Amino acid sequence: MTLRLDIAPEIRARAWLNTPQPLTLAALRGRVVALHAFQMLCPGCVSHGIPQAVAIQRSFAAADVCVIGLHSVFEHHDVMGESALRAFVHEYRLTFPIAIDEPAAEAAVPLTMQAYGLQGTPSLVLIDRSGRVRLNHFGRIEDLQLGALIGRLLVEPA
Amino acid sequence: MTLRLDIAPEIRARAWLNTPQPLTLAALRGRVVALHAFQMLCPGCVSHGIPQAVAIQRSFAAADVCVIGLHSVFEHHDVMGESALRAFVHEYRLTFPIAIDEPAAEAAVPLTMQAYGLQGTPSLVLIDRSGRVRLNHFGRIEDLQLGALIGRLLVEPA
Amino acid sequence: MTLRLDIAPEIRARAWLNTPQPLTLAALRGRVVALHAFQMLCPGCVSHGIPQAVAIQRSFAAADVCVIGLHSVFEHHDVMGESALRAFVHEYRLTFPIAIDEPAAEAAVPLTMQAYGLQGTPSLVLIDRSGRVRLNHFGRIEDLQLGALIGRLLVEPA
Amino acid sequence: MTLRLDIAPEIRARAWLNTPQPLTLAALRGRVVALHAFQMLCPGCVSHGIPQAVAIQRSFAAADVCVIGLHSVFEHHDVMGESALRAFVHEYRLTFPIAIDEPAAEAAVPLTMQAYGLQGTPSLVLIDRSGRVRLNHFGRIEDLQLGALIGRLLVEPA
Repeated sequence: MTLRLDIAPEIRARAWLNTPQPLTLAALRGRVVALHAFQMLCPGCVSHGIPQAVAIQRSFAAADVCVIGLHSVFEHHDVMGESALRAFVHEYRLTFPIAIDEPAAEAAVPLTMQAYGLQGTPSLVLIDRSGRVRLNHFGRIEDLQLGALIGRLLVEPA
Repeated sequence: MTLRLDIAPEIRARAWLNTPQPLTLAALRGRVVALHAFQMLCPGCVSHGIPQAVAIQRSFAAADVCVIGLHSVFEHHDVMGESALRAFVHEYRLTFPIAIDEPAAEAAVPLTMQAYGLQGTPSLVLIDRSGRVRLNHFGRIEDLQLGALIGRLLVEPA
Repeated sequence: MTLRLDIAPEIRARAWLNTPQPLTLAALRGRVVALHAFQMLCPGCVSHGIPQAVAIQRSFAAADVCVIGLHSVFEHHDVMGESALRAFVHEYRLTFPIAIDEPAAEAAVPLTMQAYGLQGTPSLVLIDRSGRVRLNHFGRIEDLQLGALIGRLLVEPA
Repeated sequence: MTLRLDIAPEIRARAWLNTPQPLTLAALRGRVVALHAFQMLCPGCVSHGIPQAVAIQRSFAAADVCVIGLHSVFEHHDVMGESALRAFVHEYRLTFPIAIDEPAAEAAVPLTMQAYGLQGTPSLVLIDRSGRVRLNHFGRIEDLQLGALIGRLLVEPA
């Protein structure tokens, strides 16, 4: 778990699912953002990361905490494209907005993943009401600890 | 889940386990207190409540959050006495301080349980750094929600 | 897991719960018997052993497999007596017959536990339709493996 | 759960993974076969069916029980092709042989799935040592019950 106080880089998305129009972090100032980076064929994402993102969505009011999925493909690119992701999202009944991380021209790791320095999937980034990165965590994090951090961010002034 | 802003009534204990001397809420001002009411023969306490209390103890620094067990026996009194509780605590390897709720002279429900108006076991009471009751919850509460409330309390001034 | 082909020793019980009259293994010839030894204050019994005994009871017809609990107290004797066990059985809603293992005159380990050479609790003993011990297992055993053994015993002639 | 005593239809596979050469049920006579039909983007397969197939593989000797995966795609065909499946099998570290069910010329449901009359995924088919279908189950089945059926089949003569 790394605490960083930088302003969160904007999400660079090739496309968005589950939202009529693209989201920007700038427009979400005033809300806490939980950015969940995953790959649809990553076992730890499917068993823990995605269910935790769904639990955040269910546990907090949308006006307080905005859950955003980030499909950051850095391996098996040919079989985790947009059509595959749409089938996955349909089957797993995910309803939060999901950005498809913009592929890099000459690297395996896509652009938003690079900008945040994510170490892999699943990763969870928490962004405070002022737009700063407050958690950048690779792997599993317990609900109690995660909840405590979200709770702290919710009482801070925007 | 009920939010109440009263000052938390003092714990009335017949005896204490896992502490060299009795605790008082008064002396714990400045820390968040998680008071977990249970009965050793209550299945929901054993499967969910007690493991959650242990998780709180493990997830937060003792200087921030103080976990206290409250053995509030309101049924099967003859088989949940102090000796039985000591065997239970030994077998389940519980290490947080536990108060044996003071039995009432002429009622099944013991005195601290009465004072807090607990509806049954397991119940979880959260007390803020100023000594006020902020959660009084009967039954199961999800870790994310509980964590969020603890997180809020931790950033409030004492 | 130990396979033994001895005739199962009779259960020596001080008392029985959940049955109008004492059971004998002799009278159960023709059925497979799953004898689950436990202590009410044994954490592994409560979390794994007892739920597995309940699952056996639910998964097989009573005419095929008879589940019997055996309360074999070898520690904390003073707080796991008959009244305590009755409260436990009531709270955990156990409905299979349970024998209270006959205490030994001068040893901690009760008589049936001695006769079977049980190493501790939870233990599971499987007795075939001819009354022979086919499994004597201390600790946890996976459902798939346990089911396979029960399945084998069910197709053997009595 | 349907019990049928037909000879199991041969597996019709477009390709095989995790085996140097195609398997045939004919060549597996004498062993019990657990044929697990799944789709890589089916949530129930990923959370329950595939882990149960892995548990069968782990719990029984390969000489006794042969676990075979059957990738029976009947929806989202374009994103569950062979390359995608290979990535999935790699990420989930599956090591049992897997047949890619032969697509039908003019129907969504592939040929082996049709021949067995499977109702969906996950499905589990158990084939006895004589090559007859003994279980054809759609959805979840408990380990205890499944183990019992495998145990019965293992003691039948081939």
